[in-house]
Parts: sequence; C-alpha cells; structure tokens
Amino acid sequence: MNRSHTCGALRLSDVNTEVQLAGWVHSVRDKGFVLWIDLRDRYGVTQLVLDEERNGADILAKAKSIGREFVIQISGQVIERVSKNPNIPSGDIEVLVKELTVLNTADTPPFTIEDESDGGDDLRMKYRYLDIRRNPIKDKLLFRHKVSQIVRNYLSGKDFAEVETPYLIKSTPEGARDFVVPSRMNPGQFYALPQSPQTFKQLLMVGGMDRYFQVVKCFRDEDLRADRQPEFTQIDCEMTFVDQDDILAVFEEMLQQLLHDIHGITPAPFPRISYADAMATYGSDKPDIRFGMHLAGLNDLAQGKGFQVFDQQEWVGGFAVEGGAAMSRKEIDAWIDWVKRPQIGAKGLVWVKCNEDGSYKSSVDKFFSQEDLAEWASACKAQAGDLVLVLSGGKTKTLTQLGQLRLAVAEEKGLRNPQVFAPLWVVDFPLLEPLEDSDHFHAMHHPFTAPKPEHIQQLETSPKTVLANAYDLVLNGNEIGGGSIRIHDRAVQERMFSLLGFTKQEAEEQFGFLMDAFRYGAPPHGGIALGFDRLVAVLGGHESIRDYIAFPKNNSGKDVMINAPAPLDDEQLGELSLKTTS
Amino acid sequence: MNRSHTCGALRLSDVNTEVQLAGWVHSVRDKGFVLWIDLRDRYGVTQLVLDEERNGADILAKAKSIGREFVIQISGQVIERVSKNPNIPSGDIEVLVKELTVLNTADTPPFTIEDESDGGDDLRMKYRYLDIRRNPIKDKLLFRHKVSQIVRNYLSGKDFAEVETPYLIKSTPEGARDFVVPSRMNPGQFYALPQSPQTFKQLLMVGGMDRYFQVVKCFRDEDLRADRQPEFTQIDCEMTFVDQDDILAVFEEMLQQLLHDIHGITPAPFPRISYADAMATYGSDKPDIRFGMHLAGLNDLAQGKGFQVFDQQEWVGGFAVEGGAAMSRKEIDAWIDWVKRPQIGAKGLVWVKCNEDGSYKSSVDKFFSQEDLAEWASACKAQAGDLVLVLSGGKTKTLTQLGQLRLAVAEEKGLRNPQVFAPLWVVDFPLLEPLEDSDHFHAMHHPFTAPKPEHIQQLETSPKTVLANAYDLVLNGNEIGGGSIRIHDRAVQERMFSLLGFTKQEAEEQFGFLMDAFRYGAPPHGGIALGFDRLVAVLGGHESIRDYIAFPKNNSGKDVMINAPAPLDDEQLGELSLKTTS
Repeated sequence: MNRSHTCGALRLSDVNTEVQLAGWVHSVRDKGFVLWIDLRDRYGVTQLVLDEERNGADILAKAKSIGREFVIQISGQVIERVSKNPNIPSGDIEVLVKELTVLNTADTPPFTIEDESDGGDDLRMKYRYLDIRRNPIKDKLLFRHKVSQIVRNYLSGKDFAEVETPYLIKSTPEGARDFVVPSRMNPGQFYALPQSPQTFKQLLMVGGMDRYFQVVKCFRDEDLRADRQPEFTQIDCEMTFVDQDDILAVFEEMLQQLLHDIHGITPAPFPRISYADAMATYGSDKPDIRFGMHLAGLNDLAQGKGFQVFDQQEWVGGFAVEGGAAMSRKEIDAWIDWVKRPQIGAKGLVWVKCNEDGSYKSSVDKFFSQEDLAEWASACKAQAGDLVLVLSGGKTKTLTQLGQLRLAVAEEKGLRNPQVFAPLWVVDFPLLEPLEDSDHFHAMHHPFTAPKPEHIQQLETSPKTVLANAYDLVLNGNEIGGGSIRIHDRAVQERMFSLLGFTKQEAEEQFGFLMDAFRYGAPPHGGIALGFDRLVAVLGGHESIRDYIAFPKNNSGKDVMINAPAPLDDEQLGELSLKTTS
Repeated sequence: MNRSHTCGALRLSDVNTEVQLAGWVHSVRDKGFVLWIDLRDRYGVTQLVLDEERNGADILAKAKSIGREFVIQISGQVIERVSKNPNIPSGDIEVLVKELTVLNTADTPPFTIEDESDGGDDLRMKYRYLDIRRNPIKDKLLFRHKVSQIVRNYLSGKDFAEVETPYLIKSTPEGARDFVVPSRMNPGQFYALPQSPQTFKQLLMVGGMDRYFQVVKCFRDEDLRADRQPEFTQIDCEMTFVDQDDILAVFEEMLQQLLHDIHGITPAPFPRISYADAMATYGSDKPDIRFGMHLAGLNDLAQGKGFQVFDQQEWVGGFAVEGGAAMSRKEIDAWIDWVKRPQIGAKGLVWVKCNEDGSYKSSVDKFFSQEDLAEWASACKAQAGDLVLVLSGGKTKTLTQLGQLRLAVAEEKGLRNPQVFAPLWVVDFPLLEPLEDSDHFHAMHHPFTAPKPEHIQQLETSPKTVLANAYDLVLNGNEIGGGSIRIHDRAVQERMFSLLGFTKQEAEEQFGFLMDAFRYGAPPHGGIALGFDRLVAVLGGHESIRDYIAFPKNNSGKDVMINAPAPLDDEQLGELSLKTTS
C-alpha cells in the first residue's frame, strides 16, 4: 500500500526511479527555501528534499508543518546527493518529494529517538514502544531473532524436534518459588507456571522423542536482583542414548556455529576444566578465561612466619596484576576498600609490589623477608613490574573473593574485551552440597542429575564426595548453559530424593509421575538448558540482558508501561474462590 | 555412547557392517532355538536375531528374559533377511546380535504400544509418556515441529522478526476470562496470562519493528468444550504500512508453501468471499468449499402459498443433496431428528425428492404444486435423482442450521476428504454486532479492528452497517486464522471503545497505554493470528487437535498425568497474601 521501498533500500543505482516511501520523520532541517527530512524506518534512513524551485508552495508549506516522529508517506524521484553522507548506506542519494501525505501526527516524544537518548530508565520503560524505535534497542531485538533462528535451524538439522510443553503445571515447593495460577474450574486448586520444563522433557525422552528442544519462557518468583527477570527464556534441550561427551559435542558445535555466523569466528575446541580446578584457578565456577591472572595458593609460603592474620586462616591465596607495581598508594587503597565492601566481605588486602630492580615492597614487609615475597611472586608467576594481591580466610570464601577481585581488576584494565569470545566447559561438579545444620543436602544442579556411575556406591557411604556428570557452558565469565546426565533408574532417584530430605510421601506426591515413568522402560538420557537472554546479550557483546528483551519488568517485577500487576475486582476474585489478605 | 545407528537407518547396503543399536523392545518372537526382537526407536524398527547356532547359551538366555518395552543396547552384524518385510524401510535386513545389555527393565505397560492401542482416553492421558511412544502420536508431534520450522523460516525470509512478548501482563475484564497470577512482591495485585499478544504486537508496530511474528502460547479461562484447551498456541503476526491485500498475499503464500512442502500441492489463488456471501451460500463464516451444495433462498418461491409454517418465517432456504432421492424414509427421518437436536434447534425439515421421471415427491405435497417444487429444485440447482432439504425460521439462525446440515450430510457422503485442501479468505466482516437489550455493541473481531475507511462516517450514524477490513483464513471448514487492519488513530479508537460500552475512565484504565502510544506517531498496521494447534491438525488431515499437543489437558482443564491443578499449602498462600474461599 504505502511504499515501493523501505528507507534503507535506495542506492545510487536507483537514481531517477520514482519511489514511494513511508516512515517516521527523524529530523527536519528547514533552510527556508529548501527543506530536508530524514525519513526513518526499521531498515534505515533516507533523506527527502523539497525546495521552492522544484516544489509548489502548498506541499512545501505542508512539509514545514511536519514535526519529529510524524508518520508520513511520500512519492518522489531518487536523485544523487550533492553532499553525500558516507555514514549511512543510503547516503549517496536523496528523494525529491512530489507528493506527501501525513499518515499520523505525533506529540513531542518524552525523550529523543536517538542512539544516545536523553531518557532515563524509568521513562524509557514507560514508553518502551518509543525506546524500541532507537537503533540500540531495535538492533538488539533483531539480533535476538537472528540468534533464535540459527539455534532452531541448527538443532532441527540435528534431528531435534521442538515440542511445546505445558505452561499450566503443578507447583513443587522444592527449589525457587513458583508463580501460581488459581483454577476457576477447580476451586481452591492452583496451577504453577514452569520454572523449567525439566520433568516434561525427561518424560519426552521416556516417550521416545529421542532429541527434544524448545525455546521456552520460564518463570521464577524470586526477589529480583539487578538484571533478573521474573520471566525469562531458555533454550531447553534433551537427548537419549548419550553420554556427557555426546551432549558437549552437539552444543559446542552449536555455539561455534553461532560465533561463526554472527562474528565470523571459528573458535578452537573448547577447554574443559573441572569445577575443582575452576575454583582453584579462577575463584569461580564460570571463569572468564580471556585473560590470565591465575590464582595461586600460598599457604605453604605465607603461613608459619609469624603473621597471625594468615596463620589463623584456612586459606591464603593471591594473583599477579601485570604492570601493577606502577599503581599509586591511592589506587591500591581503592582496591582495599573495594574488597572490604559488604558484597565482597574481605577484612583486608595484602599487596606486594615487584619492583623493576628485583626488590619487593609489601604491606606486610614487617613479617616477611624479601625471599618470602620472592617466593609468593614466583608462585603467582609475577614478573618485575607486577603487583601481587593476596587475601586470606576460609577456603571457598577466599577463592570466591579472589575471583571477584580478579574480574574487577581485569575490567578496570580493559581485559574483558566484549569482542573476544572465550567459551569453555566446566565439568565434574559435585552432585550434592551439604546443608548447614542438617543431615540433608542441596542438589548442586537439580534433583534429577545422575551421579557419575563410578561414584554411585559413594551415594551410600560419603554422599558429599560424589561427582556428577554435570556441566556448565561458560562464555566470557557468564554461565550461559548448564546440564547433566539424568537419573533414569527409579531406585537411584528415590535415594536422591531421600538425600535431599524428601520423605517417601513427599517424593511420591510431587514427582510420583516421573518415578512411575521410570518403571516403563526409561532410557539413559541427558540434556542442557541455555539461558537465552544471557546468551544473546553476551554474544551481542553486552553484560545486561534488559535491552535484549522487548518488554522487560523492572526490579519490583512491574511493567510500568501497562501498569501490571494490578488489583482484581471482587467479582473476578469471587469467581476464583479467592480473597486477598493484604 | 549407545549406538552407531538409529533403528530406522540400516539398509541392504549395510550388510556385514558391525553396528551398535539402542532402543525399546517392541516385540519378542521366541521359537526356542531362534529368537527375534523388534527393536524400536523414534526413527523406526530393526529386527534383531539370536539363535542357538550362532549365539552362546548365556546371551540367548538373557535375550529370552527380556520383555516388551525393555530398553536394551546391542552390538552385532547386519545380515540380509531370509524373509523380507516390505512394509518397513529396514525390512531387508536384520542384525545378528553379539552383545546385549539391558539398559532398563519395564513393567508391562497399561496399554499396548501399537498404532491401534487398547488404551482408553483417560489411561492414555495418565501415561502420556507411553502414548507418545506410539507412532500416531509421535508422528503428529514431529509433524507439528516440521510445520513450525516451515512457518518460521518462511516468515524470517520475509523480514518478520520473532519478538517475545511478556506472559505476565495485566488483566482486562473485556472478552473471555483471563487466567491470573498473584504477585507476591506486590500484595493484593495480580498479573494476567495473555489471551493473545494483541496490544503488544501493536506497540511493536508503533515502535517501528515493521514486521513481527511469534509462535506463542495464549491462555483463556473458558468453560472447556470438546477440543478446546485452556492453553493454546498462536502464530501471531503484524505488519506496518500495509493494506488488507498486502497481508492476505503474505499469508496466502505461507499456506501455499506449507501445502507444497507438506503435501506437494500448489493450490490456485485462494477464493475471497464476503462474510455476507459466505453466510448466504454456505450458512457459515468458515465454509467448507471442498464440495458444492450451495444454499438457496426460497422466500419468493415458498411463501404465500398457504403453508403457514413458511409464511410466518423470516427466511426459507434449502440445498440439494446429489443422488439423495434414493434415501429411504428411515434415512430422511434420521436427518429430521438430527436437525431437531438441541445443538441444531430446528423445528422440522422439509424435503423434496427429485424423481428420475421428472416428478417431485415432498413432505409438503399438500401445499405446493409440482411446478412450485420444480422451481425450488431449480433454485437449488437440483437434478433428477437429487434431494432438496429445506428449513425455515429467523434468517441468521436458519442459514446457520442449513450450514450445519450441509456439513453433516457432506460428512456422511464422504465429501469431506481430509486429503483435499480447499483454502479461502472470508472478508468484509461487519465491525460490530448489536447486543440484545443494549445500545452497545460487541466487537465482531476485536476492539482494535479498523472500520473500512469509506465507512468511517457511518460509525456515528449507523454503526451496525459498518464493515471492517477484517478477514479469516479458512481451510476445509476450519477457521485457521483471523486478522484485521487495526485502528491507529486515537479518536477512532476512543469512538470504538464508546460503542463497545466502555466509559472514558474504563477505556483509559485498561488501554490507556495503547491510546497514549497512538499520540506519538502510530503507523497504519494490521495483522493476523493463526491457531497453530488447529492449523497443524487440519494440515495433518485431522479434525481433533488433542493428539497434536504433547501434554494436553482434559475437559476439566486437568493434567491427569501430573495431577494439576492441586491445592497449595497455607504457607505458600500466605506468602501470596491469599485465602481460598471454597
């Protein structure tokens, strides 16, 4: 109806063509006798021109009345521009307008529709439909579509079938909180929205579907932290008759294909490191391996020298910052303050400058000799000119703090380049985490994860030493996926529930259908779920997921554009057999 | 891990190859000295063989202990079968088993895993994971995946971007009932699950996304009728700067591509008929045009002849059944009973047999001459040997009854061949339906549908005569999609809400965000939503959607496999600030 071309299509080869365009008025430059309009749509911007010489007074007057974000339709002739704009693909041409129709007017938008907008977060969320007109948001949503198409076509080509699992399921108190949905037809009863399709995909494997995937919304009623959404999207996958290597191979190739199709990169085979090594070397189970700064344990070198702070602790460890010896006292003090923030929780930070002359200067010179400090530097692989940073405390806590410090220092040094992609697999996770004040355990991955076959006896004797065939896919310090080989044996699943503190009755009530399914020929199976929002953001070179979601919720779980959630009227509550108590 | 080939892969060319297979034991035929196992997976069935001559006693004994639906893994050698099975692709070969591992045992399933199962609906639903092992269900789910892939790739190729819209939105009392979700973080407030992403996709158009689609779950809390599901899937689409013809062209091509890729059919351009013509000719706004039997109005020919039943009514109409004159009195009586059923609600049925000798025999011979009946026959295009069936009453009701009768007779005569595909567009729907006992109207499509531009003045003067640029895509008597050009003007949208009986305040509260968006440069736009469950079923040659859904709910909205919905415990209710009153 309204256009022969989009606003991104016209080139020098189209000169003299009569065209119809439609779009939004991005800007108007009115020089009196000549007037230029930048007309914008999803595909680009085309410059329109009207002037006194070539246009009638009527149409010129109409054009002069047009404001930003008006929706117009024009017809005209493509002409070569006198002053070309090399920054846009249509910059060689403009369109001499012959007819102009205003399809809709526009009030002045509450913020500018430019790549760098003057709108704050709240305003942008309230008028998200205007925010989406901006290239940075629009491009992210189109990028998301591209990623989902690559994923779907890759998996379909590997015989995975996308099967839709239900959204109205049953609440299971275990794990995170469910969002629930009252059933009008079954008064007093509730559905729950899925936190993941985990049990359904396992049932599909029991049902012989062999290879399943789904790009699917999941829901978790958690207190929201920054960059968490109550609804989020997973690429959910499951395979039958496989072991861990089969699954890793399929999804390693998928990420390679994404990196290739999107960034033209073909990464080498992904490193695989154990959970234990990841914690020891990077202080994280989702290490960023785009840079070194490996952690080193210093217990042997730093304890028993009379420095009580270290002597009392379970763990002393550190890492070297390249060129860090050049840091001023003020810069170092800032890092000391940083590790003392409650989010990190260290008591202090010991530092050692490896001077260019081979000497060492440290905050603990009193307690340690130059030889001692030389040994620390050597353990941390520090060179002359580097800085060694050392923390101490409980082992896991200290490793985690060192890992956080390592990331923050790397961020400041510009080592976390979003255009570099360093994927890896973290494997050999423990099956169970001991719970404090309890004989029971927490499932490190989830209750359906299988112990490694060679550890199955330890389930009885020393559960906390049991490792799982569980694995995380990590990209640039982000966990973008996690999965495991599942339990397919009823007795093992029962033992697992018992270790997690379920009574027989609770296990039966909540997961009886799954354990029943294991009676009828359940095959070995396993899978993975990738966080799609995160995957897309990291592939796009960003850490924040918010702008990769068309209509996100804010940190109170609210959609401020449509004003949801909202109270219901009494009639609707009555139909649902509900009363609110707030 | 477990296999070198699937159970559907091996052919004569693989003879002598050593293979590993894994799958389910479909059947065991034990002849004592020789034993055959049909091993099944998603991809097919392969025959395994063991015998006393070529196998040891141990493995033969193990094989003999295996039951149906056991999961096993074997290795062996492909050999040519002596008696081939031409009915399966792998029927030329069998595998001589050398090693056999039982991966899991199986209890006897509650129904047979065969194409024709002995399981009733309830049992099949409770053990859906076993039902899915059956070819008829498995194939339908794989077919569904295929259709979704074709749709996604087609639309992506046409510059449509799949954008995910939120599931936790705001309840709008208008229309069908919403499922709601209590917000724990905002006590006393509720989200609603979307009945469709309608307003969001319109906001995406205001946001300049230009072409949007989504294969998306929608939710409607209705009292369930047969073959309705509380959650269902839509292919939801929207386009900017288009008129009706643009939209029809894109989605006509999409359905043509589906029919081509799936059935090898390239249908002619789809007929387009007006709503008024569809009602007059077929008694339905979703006509099945695989066969004729067009309705004819008989008022002029049948009224004023002294038959009071007809004279009192607004409408007399009928149609011809080819060869129907051969029907026995009993068969005709059965149709008379059929139209009197409460679901149809006719008072009676008049019939006219067009005898081979040119005479007419009718149930109303007393009132009408042979010449009268000849005129009816002529109006209905009945030939000698045909039967004319006639109903009378209110016009719309009678047309609808005739339409239902036409379908039922066609069904009985085998004219509704599921392998024939007859798509069409129904266009020119009325914008509004008058409500009984009210000055207000009901939106025939939905409140966002635009009147035809040339009818916009009638919105003030005679709303019920206003037609809309609304259209339905109909396939074999099923509405598989419906859409419209949308209102993009704030004043027209306000007028529309007022005609629908919204106060200004109600309109503002519920749809203020949309009307606000219309202030900032809303472009002309329109779209369509296709019922994916129905589309897949009709393309698959079936009328029922149930088996095209992996885990459907029953007619009480229950999932009997996982036993949902279910009561919540008091703690969970308390966290949600809720009490149940049932």
